[in-house]
Amino acid sequence: EEKEEEELRRRFMAPPVSGLRELRRRRRELRSRMELLIMETQGEVCRALAALDPGAAFAVDTWERKEGGGGISCVLQDGEVFEKAGVNVSVVFGLLSEEAARQMRSRGKSLKAKDGKLPFCAMGVSSVIHPKNPHVPTMHFNYRYFEIEEADGTKQWWFGGGTDLTPTYLNEEDAVHFHKTLKEACDKHDLKLYPKYKKWCDDYFYIKHRGERRGIGGIFFDDVDSPSKEEVFQFVKSCAKAVVPCYIPIVKRHCHDAFTPEEKLWQQLRRGRYVEFNLVYDRGTKFGLLTPGSRIESILMSLPLTARWEYMHTPPESSKEAEILEVLRNPKDWVH
Amino acid sequence: EEKEEEELRRRFMAPPVSGLRELRRRRRELRSRMELLIMETQGEVCRALAALDPGAAFAVDTWERKEGGGGISCVLQDGEVFEKAGVNVSVVFGLLSEEAARQMRSRGKSLKAKDGKLPFCAMGVSSVIHPKNPHVPTMHFNYRYFEIEEADGTKQWWFGGGTDLTPTYLNEEDAVHFHKTLKEACDKHDLKLYPKYKKWCDDYFYIKHRGERRGIGGIFFDDVDSPSKEEVFQFVKSCAKAVVPCYIPIVKRHCHDAFTPEEKLWQQLRRGRYVEFNLVYDRGTKFGLLTPGSRIESILMSLPLTARWEYMHTPPESSKEAEILEVLRNPKDWVH
Repeated sequence: EEKEEEELRRRFMAPPVSGLRELRRRRRELRSRMELLIMETQGEVCRALAALDPGAAFAVDTWERKEGGGGISCVLQDGEVFEKAGVNVSVVFGLLSEEAARQMRSRGKSLKAKDGKLPFCAMGVSSVIHPKNPHVPTMHFNYRYFEIEEADGTKQWWFGGGTDLTPTYLNEEDAVHFHKTLKEACDKHDLKLYPKYKKWCDDYFYIKHRGERRGIGGIFFDDVDSPSKEEVFQFVKSCAKAVVPCYIPIVKRHCHDAFTPEEKLWQQLRRGRYVEFNLVYDRGTKFGLLTPGSRIESILMSLPLTARWEYMHTPPESSKEAEILEVLRNPKDWVH
Repeated sequence: EEKEEEELRRRFMAPPVSGLRELRRRRRELRSRMELLIMETQGEVCRALAALDPGAAFAVDTWERKEGGGGISCVLQDGEVFEKAGVNVSVVFGLLSEEAARQMRSRGKSLKAKDGKLPFCAMGVSSVIHPKNPHVPTMHFNYRYFEIEEADGTKQWWFGGGTDLTPTYLNEEDAVHFHKTLKEACDKHDLKLYPKYKKWCDDYFYIKHRGERRGIGGIFFDDVDSPSKEEVFQFVKSCAKAVVPCYIPIVKRHCHDAFTPEEKLWQQLRRGRYVEFNLVYDRGTKFGLLTPGSRIESILMSLPLTARWEYMHTPPESSKEAEILEVLRNPKDWVH
């Protein structure tokens, strides 16, 4: 037993919010299993990234939330390979107003509270990786679990998450590899999942005022509470385990690619669009900014180190810049 | 008469949306006088800025809005003195839904429509100037006029506007000059205006999730429809005329100041905050992004050319960076 604990400690970036002993004591509860999964995912991703950027190291911040819970933020900034890589775990609990609870569910289901307040627990791992080289795409993932207790003691629960890619330039081979790896993770559970969540991703990451998607997609889902808690958890676990094989080979393939100042400039303009999506549309960011007691630095960790906005920038026809724009305007199917 | 027309043509950056002849024909109507004022302000400001940045020139784009009206966007980008300077005029009209009309007024007054649609006219000049040198502050101003016709033919009208300063480093002399010039413009009309609109400015440009104001303020007002159309117009005119004397002396004083790479970095981080305010909170930007047929490039012209976000950046105590942060957290009175 002690050996197992030692092993977990080695794999995590910091002690888990709920405590290792407590998690192991309640190891059969889904909440505990999910917390172990997000901690493990954080460790796996951080180690895989750090291995590619030997000069840099992740800063690890453990933080507490006054209202209940806390988190662990791991950030690598201004490395050789990565401009900014953040992997954040949060496990928060407390009481929600009926209105706040309704807003948390994408379907806006209303929940009945005792004395107007609902006990809740929300946990997740979320990450945005912005590399330096414009030939290495930005990657984002997030896997989360919610529980809310209604007045009569019923527990509402649901999962959300996704993994998606934002390249500066289109590389078809990378796009296919990324989507194929996600499809394989989904297909193990239900053949309907990948097509459904691929489309959801294209719809969600839409920068309406630009008529463009943020990137070339991946998968996205929210408010999923069927077929069963165990089955959704297993699916989420497969997705979380797919993050490293999805992305790391792409980083390895391109992190030493040569690039021109013009390519770097186009990357900076695309970073600007990333900021636009995250600040104007992203539900998680909006919800975070409005939630009292949320940790702003961990929420805005998703923003790139640098970004650029040029008035009326339009890439020339048939350029590599126009090629990616076309795909952002009209999403493609990368695997069948 | 022709000489007068020639003179106006020389002072404007482009032909006005409503046509010079038409504006002169209806010269007694407030709509025409306001359009002439915003055109003149655009010309004045652009000429004053261009004179300070002789290597660069304003690109002038005239655009039409399919649903009615159009505008003139003047942008100077990547000059010697200015990183990005945009001065935009728009004159748009058409029909609004009751809901959209309600949202346009900050007090959310509801208006009665015939067949659910309200004829409206909205015009304004708006500008953001981002200089290169971190010792020259960013400046923003906007003066606007709205008219909406209700079902019974009554015309609702109101003005809005403001001028505010966002320095990277605090310079008390500049802050006093800026506020004093605005106060003088206000005091000519009513001694109550400056204190009221100074406070409104501090309240409006608040980045809630950071607990900071965007800058050191100035004046801001919205939905002003008293004491009379003529009096409010005269007040707005004084404010518009104060833009150049408010700001240009500050640019002249500092545009050749020496600066360090660290000072440039701090400027970039402050630019990031500017983006946060504009994309998350600014009513004008939000309204623009959601309005069908609005010109995105003119709305997002307000974003800086470059910005930066560092995780957990905190300036050392008693530094010049901490000094400006203190003022952004606790606004000061610069003139009495």
